[in-house]
Amino acid sequence: MHQIKAQIEKADKAIIAEDFDTLMGIYTDDAVLVIEPGNNAIGKDAIRKAFEHIAVYFKNGLQVAQNDMEILETGDTALVLANTILSAPNLPDTERKATYVFNKKSGVWLCSIDNSYGHEVIVNRTSNNIA
Amino acid sequence: MHQIKAQIEKADKAIIAEDFDTLMGIYTDDAVLVIEPGNNAIGKDAIRKAFEHIAVYFKNGLQVAQNDMEILETGDTALVLANTILSAPNLPDTERKATYVFNKKSGVWLCSIDNSYGHEVIVNRTSNNIA
Repeated sequence: MHQIKAQIEKADKAIIAEDFDTLMGIYTDDAVLVIEPGNNAIGKDAIRKAFEHIAVYFKNGLQVAQNDMEILETGDTALVLANTILSAPNLPDTERKATYVFNKKSGVWLCSIDNSYGHEVIVNRTSNNIA
Repeated sequence: MHQIKAQIEKADKAIIAEDFDTLMGIYTDDAVLVIEPGNNAIGKDAIRKAFEHIAVYFKNGLQVAQNDMEILETGDTALVLANTILSAPNLPDTERKATYVFNKKSGVWLCSIDNSYGHEVIVNRTSNNIA
């Protein structure tokens, strides 16, 4: 399995288990997480807080899995296109066209840009934040 | 204007003018271009040949523009989500949900992954190539 795919599986399991120490291990120090379109968390501290908030928002029952993905890679940079499935007690099965960028640092692929919303960040860029 | 947006505008103008010397200037040496899902060109020589082929395929009349875009940036890495409009004498107006990755090298943002097909690379990954 591609190391990036393994990292994403690890992240999904960590999100489900609310194991944020493990989850933070797959991000670069200055990573960007799109919490929702127009609202980004930058850096591990902000990303961890965002995931803690997200866990509570989804009644501590968020499930996440990748239906299928493609990895485009060159040198120490890779783009992942994924069909991501989310669900929770208060969220019916939802598919997002996610886009992730990974950078290889000292031989380890880490996520530097985590945008599970794909192109929705364009459509909603001027809307008000709800979180 | 963000330097990346300016680079993309420069690339679009160069594609329309078939000015491949200028066009190659916006790519990293080992960039990846998705010619079509499942068919990638890797490195400047292959990318240049692909654009020469594409120009002829579209009757030397390919038009390209970005309807809107969002740039997610961290350190020397950026992800661009763009609504890209293509047309040609043999291609009616077509919108693609494009994804581009840029890397900053010596202060200049260069495209390392050019995937105008977005998530179509997943759906069609096992299909036969037509180019």
